[in-house]
Amino acid sequence: MPFTTPPALNRPWRRLACMALCAASLPAWSQTAGGAATGNAPAAAAPTLVAALDSDPNRMGWMQGFPPPPDKLITHAPGADKFPRNRWLFSHIRELVPTAAVWRGNGPASALPRAEREIGSIAFNDADGTRRTFDEMLALTYTDGILVMHQGKVIYERYFGALDSHTPHIAMSVTKSFVGTLAAMLAAEGKLDPAAPVTRYLPELAGTAYGDATVRQVMDMTIGVRYSEDYANPKAEVWDYARAGGMLARPAGYNGPPNFYEFLKTLQKDGEHDAAFAYKTVNAEVLAWILRRASGQSLARLLSERIWQPMGAEQDAYFTVDSIGTESGGGGLNTTLRDLARFGETIRGNGRFNGRQIIPAPVVADIRGGGDRGQFAKSGSATALPGWSYRDMWWVSHDSHGMLQAAGIHGQRIYIDPKAELTIVRYASHPVAGNAANNPITFRAFRALAETLMR
Amino acid sequence: MPFTTPPALNRPWRRLACMALCAASLPAWSQTAGGAATGNAPAAAAPTLVAALDSDPNRMGWMQGFPPPPDKLITHAPGADKFPRNRWLFSHIRELVPTAAVWRGNGPASALPRAEREIGSIAFNDADGTRRTFDEMLALTYTDGILVMHQGKVIYERYFGALDSHTPHIAMSVTKSFVGTLAAMLAAEGKLDPAAPVTRYLPELAGTAYGDATVRQVMDMTIGVRYSEDYANPKAEVWDYARAGGMLARPAGYNGPPNFYEFLKTLQKDGEHDAAFAYKTVNAEVLAWILRRASGQSLARLLSERIWQPMGAEQDAYFTVDSIGTESGGGGLNTTLRDLARFGETIRGNGRFNGRQIIPAPVVADIRGGGDRGQFAKSGSATALPGWSYRDMWWVSHDSHGMLQAAGIHGQRIYIDPKAELTIVRYASHPVAGNAANNPITFRAFRALAETLMR
Repeated sequence: MPFTTPPALNRPWRRLACMALCAASLPAWSQTAGGAATGNAPAAAAPTLVAALDSDPNRMGWMQGFPPPPDKLITHAPGADKFPRNRWLFSHIRELVPTAAVWRGNGPASALPRAEREIGSIAFNDADGTRRTFDEMLALTYTDGILVMHQGKVIYERYFGALDSHTPHIAMSVTKSFVGTLAAMLAAEGKLDPAAPVTRYLPELAGTAYGDATVRQVMDMTIGVRYSEDYANPKAEVWDYARAGGMLARPAGYNGPPNFYEFLKTLQKDGEHDAAFAYKTVNAEVLAWILRRASGQSLARLLSERIWQPMGAEQDAYFTVDSIGTESGGGGLNTTLRDLARFGETIRGNGRFNGRQIIPAPVVADIRGGGDRGQFAKSGSATALPGWSYRDMWWVSHDSHGMLQAAGIHGQRIYIDPKAELTIVRYASHPVAGNAANNPITFRAFRALAETLMR
Repeated sequence: MPFTTPPALNRPWRRLACMALCAASLPAWSQTAGGAATGNAPAAAAPTLVAALDSDPNRMGWMQGFPPPPDKLITHAPGADKFPRNRWLFSHIRELVPTAAVWRGNGPASALPRAEREIGSIAFNDADGTRRTFDEMLALTYTDGILVMHQGKVIYERYFGALDSHTPHIAMSVTKSFVGTLAAMLAAEGKLDPAAPVTRYLPELAGTAYGDATVRQVMDMTIGVRYSEDYANPKAEVWDYARAGGMLARPAGYNGPPNFYEFLKTLQKDGEHDAAFAYKTVNAEVLAWILRRASGQSLARLLSERIWQPMGAEQDAYFTVDSIGTESGGGGLNTTLRDLARFGETIRGNGRFNGRQIIPAPVVADIRGGGDRGQFAKSGSATALPGWSYRDMWWVSHDSHGMLQAAGIHGQRIYIDPKAELTIVRYASHPVAGNAANNPITFRAFRALAETLMR
């Protein structure tokens, strides 16, 4: 069991953060009954605020004691990933499943200069028009940790529940943006041809949905493949995928594909490629496979050599692996929040960080330029994110700040606002997987922060 | 999959070492037929020398490719721990089973000054009277890595096969010496009473073999318990223990104890406590449980705070954990060779390393003073190790050099020779589990090195 007590340095922050959240929750608590009766907007959010505090994994006592009591156990069994267990699980993934290390190297960690300021009281109106603060947003999005960098300095860093500054948390689909970036890096070196057919690298995928697709179509997720990413549907293929990769526990008698590769070989075409953007995790898994073949390296080693070591990561990261050691490129990366911030700052800095050009500047420019907005407009993602596009597995807003993000279910996020010189990274364990559940308040809080910082 | 290619620095060594071993193997190979016919001593060792080279996991191609070919897969299935798969497995444990991190902290790694010298050609006579070199010993003991420190400096460091300087290798029962040392440290602080009954800390063990035992009896393994540690017997309880802890894959339909705690509760008394030393891994597991209750911390956290961080470890270590997150204190620690050397040097330095007193000097003095030699003489271990004793889970030779060691199956070793100012750490993957298979050549090679260095 790891280290739920933060280092001494963090204790005052945690106490402060707790005070802020508790203070926020008190009126919420007292409003609950009346608010629910009148059905007004604050009442809808108030129970959530309390739920976030009450679901703190330390308060709930998950996995405490030797052994923990039976009703406080979290094991690799179906349901472990569900709220409120996920509030503990997401910071303890390696204790339940096999993993591969992403080595940080032997050098010193790169500096993260600090210029802390109190941003927790910055106010904004939520989707219902209720006045909220940045710190209230943290509770309402079930934040496990948040780190804000402005003009290259850490201005805010808070941890809650099971997370602390040195423990990796699962990044979920933020993983994909690492995979897409690595693909773009190899392409820039001529080691990977985005225009090539997928089968040049993966002949095994002839006869599958990917048999007539290009690498670029995979990188930008414009693949026509029968595969549902509907997290609210327990029969969606995303869960079959997760069981094949061992990330989700398998029921007794499981006879599905034994690993990622075998699962990917079952995917059949549905519609046409390049007809529309369609967010499907399997594309990231296919791209990870292509990267291995193109580089001759495991994904863990590629990420270590290309990004983790050059950027001076503070801690090793790790990938969950399937039964034959294959890393999950779709959602299996676990990092500390600080190292996630280093990566976000590398992108914000046009590929430059830690005194060196880690990612070629044209690669970052291409990512920030975004993908095909017409294809995105035809996707299911366009309702929540109008005007956006998707490029190299990054979400690009095309807003007036040039904002782009990496995003994972349950609230994982790298949010980069170049105009405001701002990078926000957040790890969370929201009860609802889809980010539609937290985007409305997340975006408003982050934008309000950006505008405050730009004054 | 991690980092089978060594850092650039190591390449020349590896080449040199390979040359040395290949040179050694050539006459061996050519002697095989005739040697076997005549039955003389060199012939017995010659096929072994070749077998060590031929079983190099890179040469055998284990887990290479994406995916690896079916006949080159190593998964968490029965048999994965057997030779020659163990040659790959022992450096990749975390990729097959869940693990808990032992955090190294955020500070710099402590310095390991270097004063390299060529000791590979140091010669000695093996048990059969054959003239051997130190480097031949490496192959004959299926060494994955060796690091020799003399007078506080690294004089020799070599890696083979799947191991390199930054990848953790399983320490097997060397783990126990960490657990025993931590127990002695807590005892010195008054947080653990060696004279107390085990049931003061573990009331659950009333009615088991430990119901009338003291903590000290556990620390020194003078417990009368029905449990066989005979690695050559597939029905020995040591395998039931390993399956309960999830370290060994479970056969289909497994219905044994689901975790370490439940297994320990099944152990029944056999004979009397304090009658004799009896080496049984379950004692280390009981002691690990006692440590958790006495400290309120997990074993991973305790090791991190008490030893790994203070000694300036270079890499995080990790423990294998069972299905409810319990670390294996009997054999589940994985470390780099360099960090194992730091710990060995801490013991050799009377608890002082990295500019600070990490372990109280009286604790180390007590360990080095050894346990009850009379009880040891009555044990099954006394034939191979006459005159030795066991204290706080360390093996103490009582020889003229004051040598003591931590030892794990398949050749894992911390060998400390205070008189020669020498610490040798070795990770290995010998085909035979019991150290009786390598002790005869290991002890002779290490002693020859010590005597050469003392000249």
